[in-house]
Amino acid sequence: MTPPDPELGPARKRPTGRRTGDSGTRDAILDAARDLFAERGLDGASVRAIANAAGVDPALIRHFFGDKGTLFAATVANRTTIPQRIAETLVGDPATVGRRVTDTYLRLWEEPATRPTLLSLVRSAVTSEHAADMLIDVMVSRVRTQEGAEAVDDIRMRQIALAASHLLGVAIARYVLKAAPVVALDRETIVDEVSPAIQRYLTGARD
Amino acid sequence: MTPPDPELGPARKRPTGRRTGDSGTRDAILDAARDLFAERGLDGASVRAIANAAGVDPALIRHFFGDKGTLFAATVANRTTIPQRIAETLVGDPATVGRRVTDTYLRLWEEPATRPTLLSLVRSAVTSEHAADMLIDVMVSRVRTQEGAEAVDDIRMRQIALAASHLLGVAIARYVLKAAPVVALDRETIVDEVSPAIQRYLTGARD
Repeated sequence: MTPPDPELGPARKRPTGRRTGDSGTRDAILDAARDLFAERGLDGASVRAIANAAGVDPALIRHFFGDKGTLFAATVANRTTIPQRIAETLVGDPATVGRRVTDTYLRLWEEPATRPTLLSLVRSAVTSEHAADMLIDVMVSRVRTQEGAEAVDDIRMRQIALAASHLLGVAIARYVLKAAPVVALDRETIVDEVSPAIQRYLTGARD
Repeated sequence: MTPPDPELGPARKRPTGRRTGDSGTRDAILDAARDLFAERGLDGASVRAIANAAGVDPALIRHFFGDKGTLFAATVANRTTIPQRIAETLVGDPATVGRRVTDTYLRLWEEPATRPTLLSLVRSAVTSEHAADMLIDVMVSRVRTQEGAEAVDDIRMRQIALAASHLLGVAIARYVLKAAPVVALDRETIVDEVSPAIQRYLTGARD
């Protein structure tokens, strides 16, 4: 009884294998997949539901991306600026690095362009080893690489991993679990509370 | 071709509605449910799979527990000592409370009696609001209640919630995502690294 949703646009029910506009269709699939993975996680989002949201045949998704794991990886790989954004905050005055990283990380969870990717990674990573590896890649390994291609440095990886673990816990409490005492704080207050610990992890300063 | 597993015991395929040994059967169902929720999360574990693991008819699970959400709640409610264990570590010398809480929290993730409950809460809470509320209850609200039934105290709830958020992030990185730089550390080293931040959240000390 409802009229067709104009936002679904011309890609809806596009025939399998059509060549024109492949990259637009691919992007539509990747956006729909990212949003459904963000809402339901890798296990909870079916290829059929993603196809439906993107307005394509499920066979086209298999044609472009193979299995769901590959599709999941494609929604994140080369499509997210998150590691670069975090790495950029590591550059600059070491005395305020904890504050910069904490503030940027919380903003990434709040911005419409990056929030679905983080939600999708977290909601998938707790039950999928594949997604867990990707979350670690985005929050630790690629941050380290972006920061500067020095030789492998276990101490630096450990610093970044501990800072990332803490920030991940705060983000999960605030944006996923929606724990009332954490949701009640404004972002600035959380930055005030959390950044001394992040500062300590990243710079090795001791209390 | 394999002989019956003696560990499955007399509860296996017990007829629906049998009265004798109800509490043993209930416990068998709750243990099986907890272990499957721990492995797959609330969404990923079906009532049928739980019934199969417990050696009972799925109808018996519905008879005892109603829907899957109620069963999930029953696997945690009144069955876990986690809030009490954490609250006990809050008592004592305030100068070392951060270290005590951090050490106890990591041990709870490693002990066979408590680890499945924490895994089950975390793997379920990211996609289920119901499970998220239970995780917050176990890690924050019930800790606060166990600590002492004072009037509601927003500052104390905030202190516990920030400490819990940080510890949750470290536990997820180490025990769920299995992030290599965090897995590589022994528990004592993590306690050394993390407890200053927990100390600060719980006591309000400023760097």
